[in-house]
Order: sequence, then structure tokens, then C-alpha cells
Amino acid sequence: MTAEFEAMWSTLHEVGRDARTGGYRRYAWTPTDHELREWFAGEASARGLDLTLDRAGNQWAWWGDPDAAAAAGGPGVVAGSHLDSVPDGGAFDGPLGVVSAFAALDLLRARGVITRRPVGVVNFVDEEGARFGVACAGSRLITGAMAPDAARALRDSEGVSMSEALQAAGRRPGELGRDEEALRRVGTFVELHVEQGRRLIDLGAPVGVAGSIWPHGRWRAVLPGEANHAGTTRIEDRRDPMLAYARLVLAARAAAVRHGTVATCGKVLVEPNGINAIASSVTGWVDARGASSDAVRAAVAELSVLVEAEGGTLTRESWTDETTFAPALRDRLAARLDAPVLATGAGHDAGILANAGVPTAMLFVRNPTGVSHSPAEFAEPGDCASGVEALAAVLEDLAA
Amino acid sequence: MTAEFEAMWSTLHEVGRDARTGGYRRYAWTPTDHELREWFAGEASARGLDLTLDRAGNQWAWWGDPDAAAAAGGPGVVAGSHLDSVPDGGAFDGPLGVVSAFAALDLLRARGVITRRPVGVVNFVDEEGARFGVACAGSRLITGAMAPDAARALRDSEGVSMSEALQAAGRRPGELGRDEEALRRVGTFVELHVEQGRRLIDLGAPVGVAGSIWPHGRWRAVLPGEANHAGTTRIEDRRDPMLAYARLVLAARAAAVRHGTVATCGKVLVEPNGINAIASSVTGWVDARGASSDAVRAAVAELSVLVEAEGGTLTRESWTDETTFAPALRDRLAARLDAPVLATGAGHDAGILANAGVPTAMLFVRNPTGVSHSPAEFAEPGDCASGVEALAAVLEDLAA
Repeated sequence: MTAEFEAMWSTLHEVGRDARTGGYRRYAWTPTDHELREWFAGEASARGLDLTLDRAGNQWAWWGDPDAAAAAGGPGVVAGSHLDSVPDGGAFDGPLGVVSAFAALDLLRARGVITRRPVGVVNFVDEEGARFGVACAGSRLITGAMAPDAARALRDSEGVSMSEALQAAGRRPGELGRDEEALRRVGTFVELHVEQGRRLIDLGAPVGVAGSIWPHGRWRAVLPGEANHAGTTRIEDRRDPMLAYARLVLAARAAAVRHGTVATCGKVLVEPNGINAIASSVTGWVDARGASSDAVRAAVAELSVLVEAEGGTLTRESWTDETTFAPALRDRLAARLDAPVLATGAGHDAGILANAGVPTAMLFVRNPTGVSHSPAEFAEPGDCASGVEALAAVLEDLAA
Repeated sequence: MTAEFEAMWSTLHEVGRDARTGGYRRYAWTPTDHELREWFAGEASARGLDLTLDRAGNQWAWWGDPDAAAAAGGPGVVAGSHLDSVPDGGAFDGPLGVVSAFAALDLLRARGVITRRPVGVVNFVDEEGARFGVACAGSRLITGAMAPDAARALRDSEGVSMSEALQAAGRRPGELGRDEEALRRVGTFVELHVEQGRRLIDLGAPVGVAGSIWPHGRWRAVLPGEANHAGTTRIEDRRDPMLAYARLVLAARAAAVRHGTVATCGKVLVEPNGINAIASSVTGWVDARGASSDAVRAAVAELSVLVEAEGGTLTRESWTDETTFAPALRDRLAARLDAPVLATGAGHDAGILANAGVPTAMLFVRNPTGVSHSPAEFAEPGDCASGVEALAAVLEDLAA
């Protein structure tokens, strides 16, 4: 591991870290996010890279002029990932890709590699969707996969809209929309990411190449009830939405098993959430994924029937079809690195760009716990160094 | 309704009210609670009453000297209730009793009633237990029903202990404990409360007298799991505590039906509560009550078996045996007011005092919605006036 890598890593280590849980709480357009964005700008500046922001506020740091590229060797080669986290997430999901991208660029320059195409490092905003409920908001917006009006209207758990959050962070919400200029600059995108499973452990490989991303989506169930006193309201007079939520949680697991998919109820908000008050409403989220789109849709269709029978509504918040990364690029990387090809159940900005027609690849770095979205996620320093080496080799190969 | 009543009511109306839900969020030892306590002190001062605080911080406003009482007509006659609320509670639960107590005292004085015994108005702190999980904390502490060490160690959802909250509010946590002096001053306590059910509607009566309070308790279930990614973790590798919680919710209802009690899961806290993260732990509360202690205990015993089978723990946070209000006092009030006698499933500070041997009674004022612990709870102005008249009659009768 290089000194530059370690310096970047240790600077990020305390930003947005909760002292009690040891997990990270880095949510889009918060003061913590601002600190992370300042860090990115500082790293770009320290390397003499040109920092640009696109219409969604994603940060791009360029070595070479991406707008002059058409006249030269072709559009840019970009590496990067995101800096935000899920609630109480780990240190690696996102930041490993951004830090490795800067470190790989350092390697290329230290080695005096001559590139024909400009090389960029990107920090996509709001990849986890922890605040507004839609994952990969930054990449969805610039590719047009999410409509600006829909994005601006999203609200966090405090009732703050994305539009208000953007304004509070000094952004102009009116600028949101598909960004042709930003996309034109990206000839190839490579996202390095900590693995979120155990395949590389089983294969004994420090680095892998992504083959595809499962289709995946998120649904929000709103289950209405009637607030009332827990002691004085007869069982037969109750309209208690917590019971409907319990049935939904169990049905989601059963439907996933039946259809060979996965489904998760990880977030719930209860109003008023008092020990001695029957809830007035419960809002629960279902995250559903699988190797087959049809199987995921069939599982969710069953839940929709249940939620409507309970008098509630089940609304799709996001959906991403199966993503197959560009086969030629994927095979080129796997051959260049002598690395295995893996499928994954996790969505990424790389998947959004791939679905928008950008030639895109992903590298995974082995995770000895197999755990992710948790403080337990990890990568050994040696494997991180292998990741940086692999990313540098790929960038050199593509940009030369 | 008197002008004094209306003035008090309108002053309280906006304190701690959430603009979005219309419900009240008045939690112990918060700035909102401070504002309510200042209001109480102001009402006492405006009437020339002597304000005293007991060891738990409950506020007492005295007309006449309660410490000189033994030499005169006997210890004090006290009316009152509490000013805190459940999350998104209504305007009446608690405040109606405090406001009516001041208004009844105003009536006695306006009518030139001569009392032998001192008359007091009390504001019990933290009746709902919304912040620290134990209801009637103020009355439990001064009667010794809750140990000071246990109280100081309670924590709110932000991890703040009651000890820290007391200090932040300018109180000395070391003062907590059974308060003989405060109890000696109270010869009789009468709590007026909005009805939390529909009995007075059915009976066509504006005011009723309490006969008994059901035995009731609260239990906290801690269900551990393992945080992991919602997409990349195989079903068979998951330890998802949301499933255990769902089984608990459904089992609580089933056990209540089976044992002829009520049970409510109204509050749940999920860590980390992210859409795409399997929960690392779920903490859920069960409120259980019924006409029979044995039936409530039997229902909860079933839940305990379930929670332990899920690898979790079910801990009792509070328990109150059946409370039968002093029969002679109850009958005297019912006869004096020509009012019906009702049982209730709700706990009250009056119940804690009754169980501690203080002669105690309760009056209920009709609630046309039958709903409580909700912004929908209500009492008609005419019924509020009847409540004040009834309370004044009772105070005159007892203090004369």
C-alpha cells in the first residue's frame, strides 16, 4: 500500500463515523457529505487535476482535457465510485473505489506512463440513497434514468425535499437533468469496489471483474391505521398497522424463497412510535433482487396483493434491469488481470452508466468478512494494493 | 367554560405541537417540558400559591400551608395530573387535569368557600414515559415504586440517561428517591382525566368516577441479527432480526386474544434502519394489560418463550398490579356527583399513589371520539365545564 493511499484513507477515517456504533453515516448533501466533497476537491487540487461538477453535482477530477479529447486519442477513461454510506455502513463501500482511483493515477504518473486519452476520477453523489430512498441518484440524474422533477420532490425522513437539501448545500435544483456534456467526456468507466460477498474468498483471488448486476428495486409500503390508547382500546376496535407490517415482513421472505430471489425489510418508520399508543401508520420498505427480473416482479406482485388487502399502498421507488457489463471490455480486463468474473446482487453507479450505453467495467477487491453495509466490511491492505495495481494496469491499457 | 380555563387552554395549545401531525411531543426534561413547567409555575404565582418541588421534580402549588396541616384540619387535598404527552398525543390527556384543577380552585375561591385543609395542584413529571420508557416516573419515584438507581440509568433513544437529562434540566439526579415529606402533605389525591374509551358516551354521562385500573406492564424485546447487504447476502446466510420482530408482533396479538387481554407493539427501533441493509438489531416494545394479572402474565410468558427462541431477550420495564381506588372515597364521589363508576385499562399517577396507600380517586370527562393518545382525543367545552364543577364540588367536600 502506498503512502499516498494510507494518507487518503486515514484522512477519511473519522469523517461521518458514529462513535457509538463505529459505523458511517454519510448522507447526501449533509455537512458530512460537504466535508467528503471538500476532501475530494483537495485531492484533485493537490494533483493539479481539473475539478468539474456536472448537473447533478457529481465531482470529476481530470488529468488531461476531456473536451479536447475528440481531437486527440478519444474520450476519457474514468475511475471512481462514491463517498456516501448507508446508515452505519462500513469504511470501504464507495471510498475504496475513489481512493484507489487517485492512487492508481499516482502510480501511472510516478511510472511516467504516457496516456493518449484523458484520465478522470469521479465521486458520484448519493449512491446509497440513504437519505432520499433512491440509490445511485447522481448517476441516474445525469443519464436521465431519473426525472429531475421526481428527484426534486423526494423527501428525507425529516420531510426535507431533495430540492431543499440541494439549495441548503449551495446547489441549484433547477440544474438537475441529463448531462450530455458530462457523458460525452466519459469514453470508459471503471468502478473498483470492495466485494459484497464471499466469492473471491472461495476462489482465492484478491481481485475480480464484474460480469453482471442482478435486476433490483425498492418498494415503499404505506400501511394506515388509527392511533389510539394501548390500554383502553378493545382488540376488536383496533386498526393497528403494525400487524399488517409484520405480515408483510414474513410474506416478503416467503415470496423470495418461493421465487428464488432475495427480499429485505431493513427500514421501517412508525407513527407515532410510542410504547403505549397503537400506531397511526407504518411505512416499510422492501428491497428485492434476483438473477431473473421475472422472478423479482412475481415476488413483489404477491406483496402488492397483501399490502392492498391491508388497505395500504405499495409504491415502486426505483427499478434497475439486469446489467450486463460490456462483454469485450469485461473479457479484456479479466485477461489483462488474470482475474475471475463474478455476478453481483448489488447495484452501483457503474450499472447505471452501463445501462445508459457507457462502456463500463467493475473490479472487486476481496472482503475477508464477506459482510458489507456494516462496520464489519473490510479489505486487507495487501488486497487493497492489488486493487490499485489492477486499476492502474486497466487505466494504462485503456488510456494508452 | 370559564375565561380562566380558556386562557390557560389557549396558552398551552401551541406548546410542543408538531405542525405536520397536529400531535403533541412533550417529553420529560426537554426544552418543551421546561416551557410547560414554567407555565405551571406562572399559574401558581398568578394565584399566590406556594410552589414546591419534590425529590423527583414534580411541581406542587399550595393554597394553604400543607406542613401546618396536622395542627389544623388535616393533610392536603390535591388535584392535578401531568403535562407531558406520548409522541403525537392529543391536547387533553394530562393537561385537562391540571387546567381543571386550577380552574376548580378558582371556583372555590370565587365562591368564598372556606376550607379547613390546604388545597394543592400538582403536575407530575414524565407520566407517559415517552422518553425513558417507564410510565409515571415522577409518582413512582416519590412513592419508592421505582428505585432511584434504576431510574437514573434509563436511557432515551439518543442514548441520553435520565441522570444526564436531569442534570441538563438543572436538576440534581442524586436527589431522586422516596419523598416522605411530599407524601405526608397529601391527604387525598383526585386526578381528573379525559376518558380513554367510549363508556361515558354509552352511558350518556359527562363525568364518571374511576373504580379500578387494570394491571399493566411494558416489556422490551431486544432481537439481535447481523448487518449485511440486502442484495449480496444469500437467504441462508442471513440473520435478519426483522423476521423475529414480525413473529413477535403477530404472537402478541394472538396471545392477547387467547388470554382475553390486550397487547400492543407500538414502538420499534431498527439498527441501522437502511433500505438496502439487513438490520443488525431490532428493539421492540410490548404493552400488555387486562382485567386479570394472571392472564396478562400468561400472555407475556408465551412471548418470552418466542423471543428467547429467536436468540433475544424480553425484559420487563414496568409493572403495575391492579389498582382499586379507595372504595369509601369512590362511593362518596359517585354519590356526590351522581356519576357512574368505570374501570379503565390506562395507568395513571393516581394509580401509583393509590398503590402506595394514598387515598386517591379519579374523575373521567367524556371523550366524544373515544380515541386517546392521538390528536383526535377531545372533550366538548360543556363537558370540560362539567368536569371543573365536579372537581370543585369534590375538593369542597373533602377540604371543608
